Amino acid sequence: MADKIPTEQWAQVLEKTGGKVQYKKIPVQKPGPDEVLINVKYSGVCHTDLHAVNGDWPLDTKLPLVGGHEGAGVVVALGSLVEDIQIGDYAGIKWINSSCLQCSFCQQADEPLCAKAQMSGYTVDGTFQQYAIAKAAHVARIPKDCDLEAIAPVLCAGITVYKGLRESGIRAGETVAIVGAGGGLGSLACQYAKAMGLEIIAIDGGADKKEMTAKLGARAFVDFATSKDLVSDVKAATEDGLGPHAAILVAVNEKPFQQAAEYVRPRGTVVAIGMPANAYLRAPVFESVVKMITIKGSYVGNRRDTAEAIEFFRRGLIKAPYKSCGLSELQSIYDMMQEGNIAGRYVLDTSK
Amino acid sequence: MADKIPTEQWAQVLEKTGGKVQYKKIPVQKPGPDEVLINVKYSGVCHTDLHAVNGDWPLDTKLPLVGGHEGAGVVVALGSLVEDIQIGDYAGIKWINSSCLQCSFCQQADEPLCAKAQMSGYTVDGTFQQYAIAKAAHVARIPKDCDLEAIAPVLCAGITVYKGLRESGIRAGETVAIVGAGGGLGSLACQYAKAMGLEIIAIDGGADKKEMTAKLGARAFVDFATSKDLVSDVKAATEDGLGPHAAILVAVNEKPFQQAAEYVRPRGTVVAIGMPANAYLRAPVFESVVKMITIKGSYVGNRRDTAEAIEFFRRGLIKAPYKSCGLSELQSIYDMMQEGNIAGRYVLDTSK
Amino acid sequence: MADKIPTEQWAQVLEKTGGKVQYKKIPVQKPGPDEVLINVKYSGVCHTDLHAVNGDWPLDTKLPLVGGHEGAGVVVALGSLVEDIQIGDYAGIKWINSSCLQCSFCQQADEPLCAKAQMSGYTVDGTFQQYAIAKAAHVARIPKDCDLEAIAPVLCAGITVYKGLRESGIRAGETVAIVGAGGGLGSLACQYAKAMGLEIIAIDGGADKKEMTAKLGARAFVDFATSKDLVSDVKAATEDGLGPHAAILVAVNEKPFQQAAEYVRPRGTVVAIGMPANAYLRAPVFESVVKMITIKGSYVGNRRDTAEAIEFFRRGLIKAPYKSCGLSELQSIYDMMQEGNIAGRYVLDTSK
Amino acid sequence: MADKIPTEQWAQVLEKTGGKVQYKKIPVQKPGPDEVLINVKYSGVCHTDLHAVNGDWPLDTKLPLVGGHEGAGVVVALGSLVEDIQIGDYAGIKWINSSCLQCSFCQQADEPLCAKAQMSGYTVDGTFQQYAIAKAAHVARIPKDCDLEAIAPVLCAGITVYKGLRESGIRAGETVAIVGAGGGLGSLACQYAKAMGLEIIAIDGGADKKEMTAKLGARAFVDFATSKDLVSDVKAATEDGLGPHAAILVAVNEKPFQQAAEYVRPRGTVVAIGMPANAYLRAPVFESVVKMITIKGSYVGNRRDTAEAIEFFRRGLIKAPYKSCGLSELQSIYDMMQEGNIAGRYVLDTSK
Repeated sequence: MADKIPTEQWAQVLEKTGGKVQYKKIPVQKPGPDEVLINVKYSGVCHTDLHAVNGDWPLDTKLPLVGGHEGAGVVVALGSLVEDIQIGDYAGIKWINSSCLQCSFCQQADEPLCAKAQMSGYTVDGTFQQYAIAKAAHVARIPKDCDLEAIAPVLCAGITVYKGLRESGIRAGETVAIVGAGGGLGSLACQYAKAMGLEIIAIDGGADKKEMTAKLGARAFVDFATSKDLVSDVKAATEDGLGPHAAILVAVNEKPFQQAAEYVRPRGTVVAIGMPANAYLRAPVFESVVKMITIKGSYVGNRRDTAEAIEFFRRGLIKAPYKSCGLSELQSIYDMMQEGNIAGRYVLDTSK
Repeated sequence: MADKIPTEQWAQVLEKTGGKVQYKKIPVQKPGPDEVLINVKYSGVCHTDLHAVNGDWPLDTKLPLVGGHEGAGVVVALGSLVEDIQIGDYAGIKWINSSCLQCSFCQQADEPLCAKAQMSGYTVDGTFQQYAIAKAAHVARIPKDCDLEAIAPVLCAGITVYKGLRESGIRAGETVAIVGAGGGLGSLACQYAKAMGLEIIAIDGGADKKEMTAKLGARAFVDFATSKDLVSDVKAATEDGLGPHAAILVAVNEKPFQQAAEYVRPRGTVVAIGMPANAYLRAPVFESVVKMITIKGSYVGNRRDTAEAIEFFRRGLIKAPYKSCGLSELQSIYDMMQEGNIAGRYVLDTSK
Repeated sequence: MADKIPTEQWAQVLEKTGGKVQYKKIPVQKPGPDEVLINVKYSGVCHTDLHAVNGDWPLDTKLPLVGGHEGAGVVVALGSLVEDIQIGDYAGIKWINSSCLQCSFCQQADEPLCAKAQMSGYTVDGTFQQYAIAKAAHVARIPKDCDLEAIAPVLCAGITVYKGLRESGIRAGETVAIVGAGGGLGSLACQYAKAMGLEIIAIDGGADKKEMTAKLGARAFVDFATSKDLVSDVKAATEDGLGPHAAILVAVNEKPFQQAAEYVRPRGTVVAIGMPANAYLRAPVFESVVKMITIKGSYVGNRRDTAEAIEFFRRGLIKAPYKSCGLSELQSIYDMMQEGNIAGRYVLDTSK
Repeated sequence: MADKIPTEQWAQVLEKTGGKVQYKKIPVQKPGPDEVLINVKYSGVCHTDLHAVNGDWPLDTKLPLVGGHEGAGVVVALGSLVEDIQIGDYAGIKWINSSCLQCSFCQQADEPLCAKAQMSGYTVDGTFQQYAIAKAAHVARIPKDCDLEAIAPVLCAGITVYKGLRESGIRAGETVAIVGAGGGLGSLACQYAKAMGLEIIAIDGGADKKEMTAKLGARAFVDFATSKDLVSDVKAATEDGLGPHAAILVAVNEKPFQQAAEYVRPRGTVVAIGMPANAYLRAPVFESVVKMITIKGSYVGNRRDTAEAIEFFRRGLIKAPYKSCGLSELQSIYDMMQEGNIAGRYVLDTSK
């Protein structure tokens, strides 16, 4: 295959924090002994990519930087130690690009908590290029019957909401409230929840969201814009009036984080996934103790969660809506994001 | 036995909220079909009893009220349906006096979350009398080789901290930080933690507390009064510097609730047991998500926890320090509590 | 309501073990303080009822005996202590008629393991009568939107297979093999498995069973009658060829109990539900150790499992096929069962 | 450090299955990119080593073979990719020498179940040499305050019994029966059980074993040689007579595997660790179902279990008795093993 790999490729490169990305040719890298080279066919664009450009998170990025962490493509070269993936296999590059696989967190399958974890498109170059390097042990395996364009958004958003649902400890037949159910993460959360046999209370604003979440399988909708008593309305939407067993928070403002602890049932769990800037989880001690409420944060999935989230997609249970455009158009997407003028998720075709 | 049960008995009765208890003779009740009558020999005095007197909790008490919920005694009469406990058996009356045993919470062994639960010395008469009624299904079974005076404080404080340790999900060999380790609840928590094979970091203030917690098995002590960076110091007290696997909060002020989320290791759990007035659990969303922190409230134990906590006591692994005095002296103990002039726990002898 | 309850009723009574049931009038009982009287509308007939008649299980039955333990009806009278269920409510009588609610097993929500548990239609009179007594705490609560005839078989068969699936520890997205998938228990197991988001490999014999289980949601079928290598075929039916995560055994012969340990994947679980006479669980030590296989028995569900199994039914996800006939025809059904000439489950209408 | 590593070393080499090991000089290997070279100071001798010599297990060994899989030593060279361990660190080589770290089992921290796992002293050369190669990710990290000779037996026997106790799901305060408690594995199991806060019933034969297990913390002893009814005696040794919560089987004959399912309490768990040749797990279906018994196999620990088992040792809670001798004497130890004339475990000093 070596003769098919070019020495140069198109990429979107950020030279300095806060600047604009430049669409230009850069060299194709060679994989190290435990790495693979992936011909990225499609890459989703995530809000995290914009944080990397803006530099408004506490952690510095690599510079110059090729962003992107939702890349789906084909393996084209293998390092000398790589045995478990073959040239020609479909593979995905996700937020966690590598981890040490040796620390106490990696040993318990919590690779995202590894202190040495590298993040694609942030601390190492990511998927806004045609050929990207990734650690073989961390590359997502994608079955051949999956559509590479359609699966791209699953590689970050899908895995993340699936992980959040898993972390809630909720079981088939129980009820989950999804806060922000009509958004990008939320609509994926609805689909995974349904595939897992959960009952869904969608919380979001507006008739469009209500209709959309109903189609995705929500059995109830609570409109936070018009509800006069959100806590009561969410409780009332459960069969026994005691409230949902869990609430998954994918919203981007702070208030829902504080209400959820009030409407989940005793022994209920509130899982925070979204990360609104400077927001705080907050709950009254007295009520949390006597109701035995659990509040927890859920980060991205580990490799096992990744495989499971992909398998639900493969079975046709997950459809992430997206708009297609070319890799060359990335800056204009960032511009729309900066202005808040964006609905839905974009997937870039690296050949354009 | 019927001829041995008097028709009148000594009790401490609160006629109105905010008033003083009166030591006087009142009638002995007869147990209903599913109840037992217990000759209370000893009863601990807990801060919750003072809340019942002061009426400063959101929930109203029964009035007139006989307080007390840490009573150890002997079964002297049985209702017609009672089969599983015998006259002459040792038994304990705890905070949860009864629950419906039928709702979804009772069905999953979460009796303390039952909406119909009755609380001893709060919504029903408690243990500050010589003969108290309790539901047979909820009475704590006390083995005959236990000392009734010494076990009294275990029936509330002991069960509560044991439950909190269990709720943390921590396993033998892992490290728990106990915040307020030198207090009444804290010293019991240290003993239960040791019996469960846990490593203990005691957090409290002063050299006395350091010495005392070391004797109880703590391997490290962090003094919140003198530490310049509590979060760093607690982390440094763990073998790998990553922080404890769990933190148990039995302190009575708000700040520790907010620090604990910072010093537990990634995937760590913070369990709130103590209930400082108007306090809030609070943690930054960003850090809680990327470290996957869990914060949860733990109320009192269920019946199973009760049996397990008593079994540890029976094996001689738990010694709750206390001072003895007579039931007739209760008001003076309340007076000391009101002034904050109390160290340690009092156990009342109902024969005095 | 008292005037509506007759003093006599129709019942099927077994006078002596091994004899025939007699359809005759017997007195209606009055509920004790913690009991309810249920006007049984419909009752399923289970193979266990035949065991009670034949007396071929190690445990003796009450005599004379009114059999039956899948009864759905209406509450018509309450004992003096009963608060949590009302006259007019729909209710179900299941195998576990009562338990002590106080022992260590009841305390951990394992009522079926209670040494004092009473079994409907076996150690106490059951549902082959128009009015049956049951402990209020154990009666299954049936929502008003459920059809009482259709739900009858769920009250034993449904709960039992649901419990078995829960005990397997399997999670949504994983694969379960159901051995005997085309039978009465098996077809319910398929439906519960599907509702829980599981992938199903149906194992049974014949083209009819294949078609039927496919309709119930099985993604693969392995025919034990024609397969030349059942272990290989079951493994091959999983996506990665490693075998199912769990196997649920509802078959009535011994061999499948021994094969299942060979085809579940490493860390897999084999759950035995059916109870073939004198059969043994058996697995090679060496393979079970190096593959870390778990083999476990699952008895009937507890009260929580019951409520959950009914809720899946209420949502329309479970349809138990049955044939209707009158209570008066019970002996002829037993006759068919004795001869092995029965397909599917019968539900008796107690008004006929 | 490179100049300190010799090119030749002493080793015990098996040229052909069933033959004798030869003590001779062989070349020192160089570590691959993800490997380390360890100067083995001490190595335990395990029965598995004898199986490798005799070739009586279904899996073929490498040939010629350097056996041994309980090696404790010092890291002397690192592959180019190794970052997480340093030259001079203490390290252990255990049964699992490497695994792919990428398959579904490795992803869920079940490295021992990896189909590509390599076993030290079996499929790759082990610790009966002065310098051994191991995968950096799998090497056990040994703190500097541990004695390398004393820890050697912990690296296989200790980890294995600790894993078995963990797999049983038993909690502090509950009771475990250890079958074969007085043997090598058993005495370690007793110590780990005690450190985990468990109550121990030791099952073995003879007064010596009784005395020894009592010293290790067992609260009861049942002598299988003299007991007239082992099942009853084991049950009677528990506080409530219901039997232990779990049984750990480290014995080398088949019968205990079949009795344990009878004496564990309902919901109890039987864990098989030892692997008697051609033995079968066996339990009656009827009893296993109605008592909801779990029977499972437990293989060796994963890397996390290894770290935890070592940490208990470091705290001084585990003392594995052993006899010291020189690496040169290995054949004579095998000879004793072959004849069954061996008591306790030997640890070889590679410098002799």
